[in-house]
Amino acid sequence: MPIMRKLKTSIDDQFWQNYRQLVKDELIPYQWSVINDEVDVKIQKENANAFDAVEKSHAIQNLKIAAGQASGEFYGFWFQDSDVYKWLEAVAYALRYSPDVQLQQNADQLIDLIEAAQQPDGYLDTYFQLTSPELKFKHVSFSHELYCMGHYIEAGVAYYQTTGNQTALDIAVKMAACISHHFGPEPEKLHGYPGHPEIELALAKLADVTGNPQYTDLGKYMIDQRGTEPNFFEVQAKARQNSGVQDRFDSFDNEPRAKYFQNQSPVREMTTAEGHAVRMTYLLTGMAHVARQTRDQSLMDACRRLWDNITRHRMYLTGGIGSTVSGEAFTFDDDLPNDTMYAETCASCAMTFFAKQMQEAAPDGQYADLMERELFNGTISGMSLDGKHFFYVNPLAVDPQASANDPTKSHVKVTRADWFGCACCPPNLARLIASVDEYIYTIKDDTIYLDQFIGNESEFDNGLSLHVSGRYPWTDQIEIVVTAKQPIATRLAIRIPTWSQQNFQVSIEGRSNPLQTGTNVSATDLRNGYLLLDQTWSGSTKISLKLDLSVRQTQADPHVVADLGKIAIERGPLVYCLEEVDNGNHLPQLSLPLHTTFTETFDKSSLAIPFIKLTTSGQRITTQPQHLYETAGLQTTTTQTVELIPYFAWANRAPGEMIVWVDEATAESTV
Amino acid sequence: MPIMRKLKTSIDDQFWQNYRQLVKDELIPYQWSVINDEVDVKIQKENANAFDAVEKSHAIQNLKIAAGQASGEFYGFWFQDSDVYKWLEAVAYALRYSPDVQLQQNADQLIDLIEAAQQPDGYLDTYFQLTSPELKFKHVSFSHELYCMGHYIEAGVAYYQTTGNQTALDIAVKMAACISHHFGPEPEKLHGYPGHPEIELALAKLADVTGNPQYTDLGKYMIDQRGTEPNFFEVQAKARQNSGVQDRFDSFDNEPRAKYFQNQSPVREMTTAEGHAVRMTYLLTGMAHVARQTRDQSLMDACRRLWDNITRHRMYLTGGIGSTVSGEAFTFDDDLPNDTMYAETCASCAMTFFAKQMQEAAPDGQYADLMERELFNGTISGMSLDGKHFFYVNPLAVDPQASANDPTKSHVKVTRADWFGCACCPPNLARLIASVDEYIYTIKDDTIYLDQFIGNESEFDNGLSLHVSGRYPWTDQIEIVVTAKQPIATRLAIRIPTWSQQNFQVSIEGRSNPLQTGTNVSATDLRNGYLLLDQTWSGSTKISLKLDLSVRQTQADPHVVADLGKIAIERGPLVYCLEEVDNGNHLPQLSLPLHTTFTETFDKSSLAIPFIKLTTSGQRITTQPQHLYETAGLQTTTTQTVELIPYFAWANRAPGEMIVWVDEATAESTV
Repeated sequence: MPIMRKLKTSIDDQFWQNYRQLVKDELIPYQWSVINDEVDVKIQKENANAFDAVEKSHAIQNLKIAAGQASGEFYGFWFQDSDVYKWLEAVAYALRYSPDVQLQQNADQLIDLIEAAQQPDGYLDTYFQLTSPELKFKHVSFSHELYCMGHYIEAGVAYYQTTGNQTALDIAVKMAACISHHFGPEPEKLHGYPGHPEIELALAKLADVTGNPQYTDLGKYMIDQRGTEPNFFEVQAKARQNSGVQDRFDSFDNEPRAKYFQNQSPVREMTTAEGHAVRMTYLLTGMAHVARQTRDQSLMDACRRLWDNITRHRMYLTGGIGSTVSGEAFTFDDDLPNDTMYAETCASCAMTFFAKQMQEAAPDGQYADLMERELFNGTISGMSLDGKHFFYVNPLAVDPQASANDPTKSHVKVTRADWFGCACCPPNLARLIASVDEYIYTIKDDTIYLDQFIGNESEFDNGLSLHVSGRYPWTDQIEIVVTAKQPIATRLAIRIPTWSQQNFQVSIEGRSNPLQTGTNVSATDLRNGYLLLDQTWSGSTKISLKLDLSVRQTQADPHVVADLGKIAIERGPLVYCLEEVDNGNHLPQLSLPLHTTFTETFDKSSLAIPFIKLTTSGQRITTQPQHLYETAGLQTTTTQTVELIPYFAWANRAPGEMIVWVDEATAESTV
Repeated sequence: MPIMRKLKTSIDDQFWQNYRQLVKDELIPYQWSVINDEVDVKIQKENANAFDAVEKSHAIQNLKIAAGQASGEFYGFWFQDSDVYKWLEAVAYALRYSPDVQLQQNADQLIDLIEAAQQPDGYLDTYFQLTSPELKFKHVSFSHELYCMGHYIEAGVAYYQTTGNQTALDIAVKMAACISHHFGPEPEKLHGYPGHPEIELALAKLADVTGNPQYTDLGKYMIDQRGTEPNFFEVQAKARQNSGVQDRFDSFDNEPRAKYFQNQSPVREMTTAEGHAVRMTYLLTGMAHVARQTRDQSLMDACRRLWDNITRHRMYLTGGIGSTVSGEAFTFDDDLPNDTMYAETCASCAMTFFAKQMQEAAPDGQYADLMERELFNGTISGMSLDGKHFFYVNPLAVDPQASANDPTKSHVKVTRADWFGCACCPPNLARLIASVDEYIYTIKDDTIYLDQFIGNESEFDNGLSLHVSGRYPWTDQIEIVVTAKQPIATRLAIRIPTWSQQNFQVSIEGRSNPLQTGTNVSATDLRNGYLLLDQTWSGSTKISLKLDLSVRQTQADPHVVADLGKIAIERGPLVYCLEEVDNGNHLPQLSLPLHTTFTETFDKSSLAIPFIKLTTSGQRITTQPQHLYETAGLQTTTTQTVELIPYFAWANRAPGEMIVWVDEATAESTV
């Protein structure tokens, strides 16, 4: 049987069409004006101690100077180039669903500029080219050269795939050649790897599009060098010291940082996800991709171990990762504070990338479940419903007083910012949303896995086409129409989300004779979370799926101290939250009883999008004691209506408190 | 009637004698060897981001170099001198209860050295004298010159009072003259105040001992200049800029820091305690002292407002203050996180100083209550029971995993350190413990207030003497014997702690006829928390007091999010806590029911001191879920014996978790 390929997907889904239009109509034009210094951006600092905010982007200008098309000096973060590349990648995806001659022309010209800025040997990093060429590849732990080039390679590959622009791909190939010239096992090369993983996953993509396995090998070399002795970063530090070279990154080297950039041990020996959460998950994305390309089981085992560690012990209900602002990092098992964490938008994007690679390697409902959790919660919470404001940090509990008055919570913002000096998150989210069609299906061997219930029409090269429709995530009916031009024997695997596995209905109409027709199936019929439909498809077959969207009360493992005695409310793939604008302030004084009922209201006016609001009856503490500390047991409560909205939509109205985890009302307090 | 004075107090109290001997036998000799660089100190960093730890003290050596008695360079923190002065002050108090010829000789020689290091104009700060004399008083926001000299003045005054060493006092007087020469309202002087308050309270003490009100006036000038426009620190910054002077403190000026050092507004306009907690409370101690000396009601009103703000909204149950490590500072009302706070030992000492000054101005049981809360909890928790190890930070919840793996909690230590590079806390605690006799009584007008039930014999200059005895805080019987050489009409006011006001017994035997004899009195008979005994005392009168030491369950104001749903256990003046060594790990999974009973055991072997251990029956969550997030309501619990020890004594056995606030067991979980 020939390997199946998906030919095209067009999304027809109210929820995601809206987000994709925001990316195309708001985010891409806005970022274009930012990187061209055409808007007066109000740039927000990440936290009280962050580097001084940059006043402008200067990112395109840096490229023009490097290309000899303008004069001036480099300006901005040393990884400023990556802003341009992530914009370009988002454009590549957006042009697939929304062709735009002018936009494509801008992107084509940008690629010409990038080509002009690239050095003859393939090197491209405007910071080093313009400020310190003598330091190229000399301080790879912090330099971000490989990070920037990795982002270009991702963008170039995507843009080539969309438009056929050969230059876009050629630049990437030249970059890879440059990197290969400098890094590798040969004695004269650098036996190293980047401080910020990214190039590994980019090289794997380049291998996929070019069919050239040497890119995979280079990425794999870097993956396996990581954490070996002698420590590459220390080798480079000594070399700089011996040659008397100093640079701005030296000050970062004061602390032992092995975990920060994941070189505390070889990756195959790692058992816990450590350090900077985005770096860890970019690394894992590359590792999983390379493991699949090279059929490297021990590398895949490492991915699986770290996947288990993250999803079992180090991930928020929203899919957020990174429990501390310090190093934007993982901390330790079950440490998931709700009001001091980082849970960066980029990290949720990266976790989605990682899940997708795991799914591609060995499809399993848990990977698709997690992609869905990220897509509907921790990623899109990073953007306002108007597509114009952004969060870096996605907290699960916010108190504006704390953000304003406790410097250790200054990174937890109450309102989304216009833009950031370090602008990684908005374009990361843009490229994810613009390519969300890539997350709907996984094709493995003879099976088409329907991973996400995003309304779409897709064609496969064996002549099968699928049309998925519904009003997910709001309503529970999903219709899947399978059309076969001629009879085709293919397995269709439909994900039944974990939260619906005890209660779902599927009925199949039409000429064919599937395993189950017109009957309910049970959880025991599922394999790895998928309902398998093995049959020869012909003509049109309508599959009706009904999921269980009843409201769920969720509790965390009791080792998660922050969530002890608390419950969270979920409905389908959505995590819900309470906002001050709906419920008054002092939200932590509210509690909800277990097994309460919720009223679902389809609300078309409160937010920029229609959504289902949940309402129930809760308790509010009313005690107003005279002293700070008093005799226990004198607490009084009153009944209050509690309203919840989807977490991703918080902070789109009046600024105020927000909580995801609510105290469970005790029998005593509900009297 | 002549103003009464206390002539002398000798402490005869098992609990405090032990601490005072530790100060005399362990702390003072150890610090002496530290400041003389005679021990190889293992110095702990305050937190992951702290300045590099110093490798030695060099404090005495700095003085010798400044005195021309040694050669070399200044070494250490720029406020290193203060370590010497706090040692000297502790010695001054210790010599009162434990005369020691050798120690006094060392101190006398030290004073000679200090005199030799002092400049002819009275200036003394070895950092500036040895590194940058041109910067003297040019960067007062961060320089600590006035802080160091303030600490000397406190020490010099105390040492003069103990030993009569005139040089000790003369140095202080010369320092004050130098400061007066540079600071004041005259046009040619600096119209300023220090970044770290201390000199204000020191000058007030100097005024008390010399009877010269000009010292009070100088302190008051600084107090009232604080927060006025033009901002003195900005004036100095501009002056440095104009003269092209740069110094190491410039880097501290990047952030707007008004609240950090309390110059956001004139002090009389402040309504909330802000910024660095030690600075705030040193300032308040000076303000209250000056307000009393000058009968300045509006200044006292400001003290009272800020007192109310701290004790009603910004103080831990243990008396700890400073809710965040960032700036070691207050944050906002009711923000009292238990595991990330600072609650510095020095801040609890300073709060004790502040309370004492408030009490001196207008005696009230709440001030004496707070002194007791600090003395039995947040101060002495800073020192191990062997007197050899110290905490900077006094948390109310500790998880060793968090301290090790979350850099934002790296300041929360699990074990006490040998010493600190910035060694402010141990000698601060030493001088407090060594002078604890000063906190037992307050004399105001015709009344002797018995504030603390510390066993002691004291004589007053009107011929009255008091002998207080008991085994407080462990047992509830306190005996007070009043002896009058001849009939003396004096009011004796005995504090009834707030926690005992609903249940206490007092009986008075003897010849006299007090207001209440042999009868129980009630809370309504108390005035400002004191039982007033107005009578003419003659011969010997025995007063038997029985306080209510039954175990209390305490809850916090429900605006304190960190303590919601939790209870703390107290007995008498002592806050209790749970340690891992007694109760197993995962302490937050334990809960205690309301209105439970506790078994009290007098434990003579578990710790270095005998103490009362509390035991009760609690619940432990036993759920071991398969997933990180699961359906709520499936929690299971088991009954477990829970043991509690006094908070001050935690971390004296195997390192591990500790909590003060325990979840309240719900009816459900106790089923």
